[in-house]
Parts: sequence; structure tokens; C-alpha cells
Amino acid sequence: MASDIEIAREAKMQPIAQIAAKLDIPSEAVLQYGHHKGKISFDFIQSLKDRPDGKLVLVTAINPTPAGEGKTTTTVGLGDGLNRIGKKTAICLREPSLGPCFGVKGGAAGGGYAQVVPMEDINLHFTGDFHAIGVAHNLLSALIDNHIYWGNELGIDQRRIAWRRVVDMNDRALRSIVNSLGGTANGFPREDGFDIVVASEVMAILCLATDLKDLTERLGRIVIAYTRDKKPILASDLKAHGPMAVLLKDAIMPNLVQTLENNPAFIHGGPFANIAHGCNSVIATRTALKLADYVVTEAGFGADLGAEKFFDIKCRKAGLKPNAAVIVATVRALKMHGGVAKEDLGKPNPAAVRKGAANLQRHIANVKKFGVPVVVSINKFTADTEEEIAAVREAASAQGVEALLANHWAEGSAGIEAVARKVVELVEAKVDQFAPLYPDEMPLWDKIRTIATSLYGADEIQADKTTRTRIKELQEGGYGHLPICMAKTQYSFSTDPNLRGAPSGHSVTIREVRLSAGAEFVVAICGDVMTMPGLPRVPSAFSIKLNDEGRIEGLF
Amino acid sequence: MASDIEIAREAKMQPIAQIAAKLDIPSEAVLQYGHHKGKISFDFIQSLKDRPDGKLVLVTAINPTPAGEGKTTTTVGLGDGLNRIGKKTAICLREPSLGPCFGVKGGAAGGGYAQVVPMEDINLHFTGDFHAIGVAHNLLSALIDNHIYWGNELGIDQRRIAWRRVVDMNDRALRSIVNSLGGTANGFPREDGFDIVVASEVMAILCLATDLKDLTERLGRIVIAYTRDKKPILASDLKAHGPMAVLLKDAIMPNLVQTLENNPAFIHGGPFANIAHGCNSVIATRTALKLADYVVTEAGFGADLGAEKFFDIKCRKAGLKPNAAVIVATVRALKMHGGVAKEDLGKPNPAAVRKGAANLQRHIANVKKFGVPVVVSINKFTADTEEEIAAVREAASAQGVEALLANHWAEGSAGIEAVARKVVELVEAKVDQFAPLYPDEMPLWDKIRTIATSLYGADEIQADKTTRTRIKELQEGGYGHLPICMAKTQYSFSTDPNLRGAPSGHSVTIREVRLSAGAEFVVAICGDVMTMPGLPRVPSAFSIKLNDEGRIEGLF
Repeated sequence: MASDIEIAREAKMQPIAQIAAKLDIPSEAVLQYGHHKGKISFDFIQSLKDRPDGKLVLVTAINPTPAGEGKTTTTVGLGDGLNRIGKKTAICLREPSLGPCFGVKGGAAGGGYAQVVPMEDINLHFTGDFHAIGVAHNLLSALIDNHIYWGNELGIDQRRIAWRRVVDMNDRALRSIVNSLGGTANGFPREDGFDIVVASEVMAILCLATDLKDLTERLGRIVIAYTRDKKPILASDLKAHGPMAVLLKDAIMPNLVQTLENNPAFIHGGPFANIAHGCNSVIATRTALKLADYVVTEAGFGADLGAEKFFDIKCRKAGLKPNAAVIVATVRALKMHGGVAKEDLGKPNPAAVRKGAANLQRHIANVKKFGVPVVVSINKFTADTEEEIAAVREAASAQGVEALLANHWAEGSAGIEAVARKVVELVEAKVDQFAPLYPDEMPLWDKIRTIATSLYGADEIQADKTTRTRIKELQEGGYGHLPICMAKTQYSFSTDPNLRGAPSGHSVTIREVRLSAGAEFVVAICGDVMTMPGLPRVPSAFSIKLNDEGRIEGLF
Repeated sequence: MASDIEIAREAKMQPIAQIAAKLDIPSEAVLQYGHHKGKISFDFIQSLKDRPDGKLVLVTAINPTPAGEGKTTTTVGLGDGLNRIGKKTAICLREPSLGPCFGVKGGAAGGGYAQVVPMEDINLHFTGDFHAIGVAHNLLSALIDNHIYWGNELGIDQRRIAWRRVVDMNDRALRSIVNSLGGTANGFPREDGFDIVVASEVMAILCLATDLKDLTERLGRIVIAYTRDKKPILASDLKAHGPMAVLLKDAIMPNLVQTLENNPAFIHGGPFANIAHGCNSVIATRTALKLADYVVTEAGFGADLGAEKFFDIKCRKAGLKPNAAVIVATVRALKMHGGVAKEDLGKPNPAAVRKGAANLQRHIANVKKFGVPVVVSINKFTADTEEEIAAVREAASAQGVEALLANHWAEGSAGIEAVARKVVELVEAKVDQFAPLYPDEMPLWDKIRTIATSLYGADEIQADKTTRTRIKELQEGGYGHLPICMAKTQYSFSTDPNLRGAPSGHSVTIREVRLSAGAEFVVAICGDVMTMPGLPRVPSAFSIKLNDEGRIEGLF
């Protein structure tokens, strides 16, 4: 089969206004960025307020393994599949980050015959949203040091500044720096550092904000530092939220592109899935729901992190009611969960699939706890045997759920029709009764425990004194009503990335908590969190260039 | 009169494809960015190669003073004026930088009834060019530290790294930093710092490159560091030029907007006017010349820096032949050159104007040395007296040049018709015989002396031993053929910003030279050069916000 980039380049793209027309978006409401990308104007979006919502379908997955699962590919394929069977459907995806493209090969626009295009643009600057987020973030950083420089009236404790700087680049040299060196004209030297743009709280805020007013208010609530007596100082204290919102006024409008089958896809926002909630913007999802009968979206990582945050953070806050969920699994990945090493994945091993299916079963049970009906989509690989596939079906069936084969990667929408029809059946049965896992009023500590025990199979959670004190401070400081954003390994239900399958009886240690007061969640960190990746010894940058026809080579 | 922003908001903008059509650009060749901005596709630009060029008119100015001169306003007004008298004219301007908008009030899109629109977009993210330049720059920075991290095969001397990092923000805290702190995983700590994006050599390269191939090659020639035995290491040694060019493939396409009178304006690139050449991109100017009969462009600062660099760097390298120049002056500014303090500018003082006109006269004489015919445009202020205006006319006339009143700020194109007609007269007389001031073969030291003595009125140039050695090294290292980019104060012909008028007999001290091997010039630094501005005590950011209708307030 042709490579992803070859397939993408052969795509017969339609002008973006034509794609918009499929959702009855008038051409004046499409702010074009070239011929094949567009932003949907905010005025138009606001005019949709009173329309009824379409149906919302979440695509999530088992815990990822090096075998690959294909969640984004399934999201794109399912969108095409629903359109194919006559449902007016829009897809909602996250925007990929530019920086990492120059580190390790690989974009984030689907694959095979289930891709969104123009792939190269989507993976590079796209419509500039991440640049805008980076500048808004760094304006706040500059205002903090500028405030200290001119007298520090607010009494910022320079050792307690919680706001770093950002850049959209894998640059380990910037993880930890000392700034303001070089004499009095440059300020007061202090420890600082850079994160990659997607890790910015501004990204999470943009993705959770419901309109410009809400965006501005959330930006104002960012806690940027503390005084010596630990009083929080907010972005609004520096009058930073106004100009930050100005910098984000275009970025907040959702981007429209198309799938290879010329169906509409919104790609908007891309917060980290560990220290943030890992979903595309609320504004994109809500807009899509007003315009389409079905909206297919995805969440980062496996269902333990992605679906949970989608339900407990995004849906809770935005008032979204997901009607069905698709859990993506592959025979290969379940084999790894069953204990098979990567080099042995080629050999048939139904027993390992049966064993590894415990991972899938727990995800099914977890999603059901939110009141959302489930179907399993098995992303087909040619080496999968009948017996292995049957093992997956049986495991799902034991949970009262159907598992269907999908081959959209090779066949496009035709390959995923069965899953699409099952999704429609689940939605039309109207059995969904979505509710978040825990109520707002539950104390922060109990929220974390509820997630760990009822979803991860843990027996208990623990934390050292410092962390427990910090949780108490937040609870008493007026942040107790916020939902929890878990930051743990994506590879396991536990905090040990090597513990595949469905471990239970383990203990989840909270190493640290961080407040994202603007995004409105409390991050519970249960493992190493890397917010600034580095480049490998031979970065993919080395093979990226323009050829003689001005075309990009080596990007994917 | 209404404020600039009020006037800009009342503009009846035409769709950008309609503006493009005035230059016979087909709509497929316009990559729209919203309804009123567009990039001209590179394929279309390459199809113009064999067309004849239009006439090129430079707008430059006397040495700036706090009284204000209005160079950009005159460029826009003259473009409209030429269109008014039936000449198919395009304007070429620089893109403003986003960061400084949050420091001190004021955009860079003209003023009054001579503006380019959409003003807010132009002053903020515009089409993302500066973001792309910033990322391309920072990718190179990351690759440098990554190379050292993985073994430093090229033997980069970490004390001799010549490539800093950039951010589009006024952020003094980043001027001087120590990076790579925090342990072995983060690299080797070293001194580093950030400049503002417009100061990046990538910006200068983008503005001087003639096509994608030339762009890539220039990027590869950037000197990023030296070994311990002072051997230069190039960006191409790190294989950085390929991916950098990929990041710039959209940024290199010129941006099209419109004036308030719906005439086409290219706004593309904005290099610093001190450590770089301060002109819009060669690609924009060349494209405009293929599409219009007249092209009006401008250069940064006064004619001593701006026009000289436009002629000796941009025109020399791009093979451009300017046909006429307009020198902008105001009665108020000439009064200041004649010794009047800012608070006394309101009082009539023809004697001071006569005295200060020496500044104008030297600029006229200088521009003529390049073989370019001149007209003076006096930007009218209501308080100017007849006698003062007459003093300017007489000073110009003594140099064989006409000085004409222009009132485009208040009247639009109607106010500048006389200047427009004079420009046409000069061009049609075909007396221009453009040549750079010095030949490529002249040694670097002699080039600097030539500029200082024949244009600045200096008697001599001087430099300490270190600087002279460095000039010799560059001369012998294969860089002797490059033109000089002078970095001195814009306020005086001398290196003393307080020396107004037309000083002579002074000495110009070269403090330092810097090699911009990719941009292809050697920077001679004759004063303080600030490549990272700070924010003031009360930055304009404090009053910038979105109002209840989602409109920007306080930006201008």
C-alpha cells in the first residue's frame, strides 16, 4: 500500500467553502487560510445558539502499547463511515504540535485511507493557533518579570513564580534556566524554564472556554505566583488577561478541514493529555454538534485517562452529553497486554489475546460507569487470525458489548460500515444516561481516590505530607470544587508503565498537585511528567527539506 | 479628526481577491487569510519571470526626531496618489512586529487617511510570517544544543556560539540567561539569550532571498558558532537549513492587503533597520514590479541608514534599479534639527527651519550620489507657516530639487497629487542612473570609510585593535566581498544621537563587527544596539482588551 503521505498527496481536496457548505455554513462565515483550511467565524457560531444538538460519539482506546492502536485513524474512519451510511457527520480532532515533528518522525492526522488533509499544513503552522497561544503565554511571562523590575508592588515571591515560558520546539536546553542576568537593566536573576506550547495552561483554557468572555475570565484566574506569605497572585492582578484574549481572538475560532473522502473535520486545540485534559476545544465540539447530526471526537491516551477526562472535565464543564463511545483495540496490542514481546507479535497467540483482553474489559466496564453505551472497534491487521479475533469478540461479549472488525485504514469508509451502523443503533436506542464519575462537591482527595479505585483497580491512594498539605490548602483555598486532572503513565491502569493488562490491588502515589485555576482543574501528578521533550541523536529534522519542486520531503 | 483606528474601522474594505484583480492576479493565486488578507502563491510569482518591470520609487526621510515625520504614511499616500492620477501602482511595506504593540502604543500601518487595512490584523499575528521565522530560528538553536548534548562531533566551542534564541515579545528577562541547567539530562550549561524575532538573521535572509532555493542556501550559510581554533561552523553542518526552509515555505510568499482607498499593498518581511537592512522582502518588491507600473516602497530610519542600505544591500543584491526617491520632511522636524526644543515646536521659527534644513540638504545630496532623482515631500501640519514652508522649498531648491506640500494624512490621495505628479515627471524624464556607492571588491574597512565620509560628513573612522583584527579576519576569511550594514543611531548623521542638523568633521567609531553570512552583509556597529526591548512601567498591554462586542480596545 502507498504511504500515508503519498495517499494524502493524491487526495482530491475540495475547496474549503464547499466542505463548509455540507454543514450549511455560508461562505462568508468561513475565514479561509489558503484554499483548504478555514476558520469558522465567531459571529456565525454565536448565531447557532438555539439550534438542537446532534449526537456525540467518543472514540477512545485500550492502554496504548508499542504495537499501535489507531485511535485517530478510527475517529476519521468512523466519521467517513457515518457519512457513508447517510448520517450528516462532522469529526472533531486535536491539533498536532509543530515542534515534535522535528524530533521523531510521525504526524497526527490519521493514516492510510482514513486521514485529514492538508496533512502537511495541519502538522506544521496550520492556522497559527499554537503560535498565538505561545505568544499569549509569553506575554504573561514578560509582564511578571516586568512587574518585578518596576518595583514588585504586588509582592511576588520570586521563588514562588508558578508561570514558566513556552516555545513550540523540542528544546531540552530550555527546561531549566536562570533568566534576567547581565546587570540591573535586565532585572532580577531567578530560576525559570520553558515548556512546550501544548503544555501551556493557556492551551487548556482555550480548549475549555465557551466564548470570548469566558476565555478572558479564565485567563484572569490563572495563578501566576505567590507572595511570601503564600497568597496567590492572579494574571488579572497584572492586567494580563485583556491583552492575552486579544492575542487569542482568532485562535479561538475552530478550524475546518476535510477527510480524504471530503467530509468535514474540525481540528482545534491540542492540550497535553497528562497535565491537561487532552481533548479538542469545547467550542469546536459544540459548533459541530449544532451543525451535524453526528459528531465523532477523540480523547488522548487510553480510556483510563482520555475518556475519564473527556467525561469528568470537558463534558462536565461544557454540559455535553456523549451518546456512545467506541473503544479501539487491536489484536496485536491485546497480545502485548497478554505478555507477548514486541518481536513476537507476528506469531498467532489466541491465549495471549484472551489474557490481554482483561485490559479491554476493564475499559468497557469503566466507560459504562459514566452511563455511555459502548462498541469495540478492532483495527484490523493482516496477520490477525480468526481465533484471535474471536477471542476479542468473546471478551467484549462477556461485558455485553459487541466488538466489530474495522478496516478503514486500507479501505476508507467502506471498511468501517459495520461499526458505524452499530454506533447508530446504540445512539438510536437512547439508552445513554451520561453522568460524571463524581460530584463537584466531593473533596479533592476523595475525587482522586474515586478515580483510582473505581477505574484503575487500585486499593488506595497515598501521598507524602507536603502533597497532602497542598491538597488541603487547595481544598480550603476555594479550589475544592474543581475536577481532577490525573497525570499518570498512559501505558497502564497503574502508575507502573510496565504493568500491562488489568492490574488490581495496587497503590497510586500522588507525587505532587498543581493548580490550573484558569483551566479549572487540579492536576494530580503520579509519575514523571515531561513538559519539554528533547531531540534524539538523529532528529527527523535531518531528513526534512524542500525538493526541487518546492515540495516537502522527509516530514512523515 | 477621527483617530487612526476609527478611520481604519470605517474603511470599506473590498474582498482581497478583488484587490488582487486590480493587479491581474487570478483568484486561484491568492491564498486567502480571512476575507481581507492574502498570500500570493509562489507558483504564480514564478510565472511572472519574463515580464518587464514597473518603476520603483523609494520613500525615505530626514533623520527622525521626536516631532515625527510620517514616512509610512507618505508611502501609503503616494501609492494612493499615483493610482489617483491613473498609474497602476502597488505599495510595498514592512510587516510590523507584534511584541512591541504591548509595550508602547502605536502600530505601523500608516495614519490618518493614508493607512493600510485591516490594521489590527497587520499589527498582530497577520499571516503568521514572524511566527514561522521565530520557529525556524529556534529550531536551529535547539539543533545546536542537541548536537553538543549528543557528543559535539563538530567541536563547537560553547563560548563561541553566535546564534541566540528569539521570541516576539519585549522581554528583558530573556536578554541574558544561562541555559541547560538542572542536570545531565538537560545538557551543558552555557550563557545564552533571546532577541526579538525581527532581529533574527532568518528575517534578513527571508527578506533578501530571491526564491526557495536561494533561501535554503542562505540559511545553510549562517555561521552559528566557532570551534576552539576559530573555524566557523555553519547551519548546513547541522543539516538545519532544510527543515528551516520547510518552516518558511509559506512565510516567503508575499502578503497582499489594501489601502483605505482600496489600492493593493504588499506587506512582507520586517528586518531590524540597525543590525539588518530594514526593507520589505525582495520577493514582494520584485513581484510588485512585475504586476504594477509603479511600485512605492520605503526603508527604515532616515536616508543615511535606510536609503543607503536599500541601495547598497537590497538593490545591489536583487538587481533592482530605483527610478526616483521621495524624501519626507516636516517643518517641525527641521525646526528640531535647527535647535528648537520639543515644547517650542508650536511657535513659528523660520530661522530654525532654515538652519535645520541642512539635514535635509545632505540627505538630498546623498541620494543623488546613487544616481537617483529626488523630490521632497513636506508632510503638512496645520501650525506650519508660509514662511517656514518657503524655507524648506528654498533649501531643496538650492540642491536643484523641488519640495512639495503633501496633506494625504487629512485628505487621502487628493492631498498628495502634486507629489505624485512630480514623481511621474522624474521617472518619465529617465535621468536615473542608479549605482551602489561602492563596488563589491572594495575592502570592508574602505567600504565603511566610504559610507562615513561621503554620506555622514565624517572625517575618519576608527576602531580598536580587536575590531580591526576581526575586520581583517572577515576580509581574509572570504567575506570581503559583502556589503556593509551600518548600525548607528538613526537620529544623527554622526554617532551621537544629540547631534542634529548636518554635523561634519566627526569621527565614526566602529565598536564591533558581526557577520551575517546568510543574509550576506557585515554589520558595523557604531553605538548601542538593543536587540531585545523591555516593557515600560505602564505597558500598553494594561489597556488592551476585547470589549463586549469582541472588538479590540486600546491597541492603538
